[in-house]
Amino acid sequence: MECKVREEVKKLEKYVAGKPIDEVKREFGIDEVVKLASNENPLGTSNKVKKLMLELVNEMNMYPDSASYDFKKALSDKLKINRDMIFCGAGSDSLINVICEVFLDKDDESIMPEITFPRYDSNTVLMGAKPVKISLKNNRLDLEMMINAITDKTKIIWFCNPNNPTGDIFTADELNKVLCKIPKNIVIVMDEAYYEYVTSEDYPNSLELLKSYPNMIILRTFSKAYGLAALRFGYGIASEEIVDYMNRVINAFDVNLFAQKAAVAALEDEDFINKVKLFNKKQREYLEKQFSEMELNYIKSQANFIMVNVKGDDKPIHEYLLRHGYIIRPGYLLGMPSWIRVTIGTQEQNIEFCKLLNNAIEERDKK
Amino acid sequence: MECKVREEVKKLEKYVAGKPIDEVKREFGIDEVVKLASNENPLGTSNKVKKLMLELVNEMNMYPDSASYDFKKALSDKLKINRDMIFCGAGSDSLINVICEVFLDKDDESIMPEITFPRYDSNTVLMGAKPVKISLKNNRLDLEMMINAITDKTKIIWFCNPNNPTGDIFTADELNKVLCKIPKNIVIVMDEAYYEYVTSEDYPNSLELLKSYPNMIILRTFSKAYGLAALRFGYGIASEEIVDYMNRVINAFDVNLFAQKAAVAALEDEDFINKVKLFNKKQREYLEKQFSEMELNYIKSQANFIMVNVKGDDKPIHEYLLRHGYIIRPGYLLGMPSWIRVTIGTQEQNIEFCKLLNNAIEERDKK
Repeated sequence: MECKVREEVKKLEKYVAGKPIDEVKREFGIDEVVKLASNENPLGTSNKVKKLMLELVNEMNMYPDSASYDFKKALSDKLKINRDMIFCGAGSDSLINVICEVFLDKDDESIMPEITFPRYDSNTVLMGAKPVKISLKNNRLDLEMMINAITDKTKIIWFCNPNNPTGDIFTADELNKVLCKIPKNIVIVMDEAYYEYVTSEDYPNSLELLKSYPNMIILRTFSKAYGLAALRFGYGIASEEIVDYMNRVINAFDVNLFAQKAAVAALEDEDFINKVKLFNKKQREYLEKQFSEMELNYIKSQANFIMVNVKGDDKPIHEYLLRHGYIIRPGYLLGMPSWIRVTIGTQEQNIEFCKLLNNAIEERDKK
Repeated sequence: MECKVREEVKKLEKYVAGKPIDEVKREFGIDEVVKLASNENPLGTSNKVKKLMLELVNEMNMYPDSASYDFKKALSDKLKINRDMIFCGAGSDSLINVICEVFLDKDDESIMPEITFPRYDSNTVLMGAKPVKISLKNNRLDLEMMINAITDKTKIIWFCNPNNPTGDIFTADELNKVLCKIPKNIVIVMDEAYYEYVTSEDYPNSLELLKSYPNMIILRTFSKAYGLAALRFGYGIASEEIVDYMNRVINAFDVNLFAQKAAVAALEDEDFINKVKLFNKKQREYLEKQFSEMELNYIKSQANFIMVNVKGDDKPIHEYLLRHGYIIRPGYLLGMPSWIRVTIGTQEQNIEFCKLLNNAIEERDKK
């Protein structure tokens, strides 16, 4: 091809998706496959949402509301914030792209943990800017070192809390110590995709912090606890000025009709979210207890997944689990070899997973 | 705010959506409102698609297939092309954004008609490149002048065929005369969003041309004839090399599950598309006949909308129609004052629209 592709695009790698369930079935000739690799909600979706979806089939030919009016109204009522402080997109990953398009010029810098959600890096590169990556410290974000990395070129600093793929949080105290040191012209992104799962009382109240830090952007999603990953709906909360710029770049019809209607119904069904939160906490504790009994180190999680150390090569563990119908995320793909990330599943899945994990390690170590 | 927004973003204007049906109802105190402003399909969606949607409510918690495997298989079988020549996104407008991200560097140029789909312009600006706009000639694309505008900085040339909002096509002969003059390092975008509505035998066979022009990208959508605007699904066809770069930039989960499943079923239901095409042609002819009888000039359309000249200020016509529950697109918003763009509706809607248009012009001219 003679057309000139931007150098930045050449640097990007193709996204390697997790193995789809159907492929694992075919490859290993098994009927039952459990996916614990993408932090999906094993309890599914609110029944109220499902019912609503069935009513939408007669509106599929019409464009969705480009302003997501009903959703913004519902969320602003719930959170007691101004409607103009909310922006919406087809998943929070698409909003990470837009944040970079709004703020990152060529040769700017954005600071992120070395091990975190990979879209901060790829979208920084896409804009011709430089990702500055700060090592974790004892598997936790090193907030102090992130702040120390700020230069004149820094435009964005990315905090993922709970951090994906490690799952733990930084506390309000830890955050407060560094927030005041960040210059006001740097955008602070608080990616809270797993917000609804957090049970710790030390979790920062980012909505409250937004009042003192107009340079902050909070990102949340309906893909995790709300169980709507299939529909693609993420949103952000920020100052009206930031939201105005975001809205100039977001594709007008980015959020489909089903997603908009589902999100409104999902927000209203607080019983479902409370059930999900409680269930996840209990199963998280179960898995942690099992890992302790198996003498496996794990990272204390506040999300719906856990990073556990498999005391050696994670590739054969990944393969063993696949062969037995369990898809997890091997650490070597996440920059943490000898670890695996497992999504918290149903009770039966978690029991079976622990059994399989035990056998997988035994089989590997026998060789 | 002290955060520095990119200069390119400051140049972008906020998207002004058409008036939503509910708002028109409230504002004018009317119960029945017809929207003929967004080129939606008045026949709705295939029943086969609707049925399928009802089965999906139990999969809403799972991420959609990032590779859109089933859709690519169905389309490649249908068109007899390689699966790796297809890319997908949340509406073809989102793919226009990605094309610019892949090919446009700061200070590059992209050539487009002066009056066409506005996303070529805004996404060119977003990348810091310069939109070069070529006037229409007798309300048609001036292909020769577009080619003459090519410089060393030109990276993309945008052809919308049928052109939105004018609705007419350029023919295979007209295209062939200029195609050979376009340097091979310039990306030729053939935006065929209204492809399924075209009945003219002179319409270029872009899929065939792709074989000789590896620098061509074809864009199509499920938002128009297929009646799936609510779901957001557009796709492109290009060389495997271009598709590879596109896929590095497209958000991995851009196309939601409902859209993927609906698109496969919609592709299969050829009866529905044939019905839509025939119906649209008949109603297009009806409207053209009416406009002729009313002595109104119109642009010969091959799409599901028509540009008609209202012989004077289009604003009062727009307002009159709104007051009577009909939403259309006034020309002053499209760079063609004294024209309006009307989507072809159901037979009843078209009859009623013509009556209202006649009255609207009379009322305006009485004043």
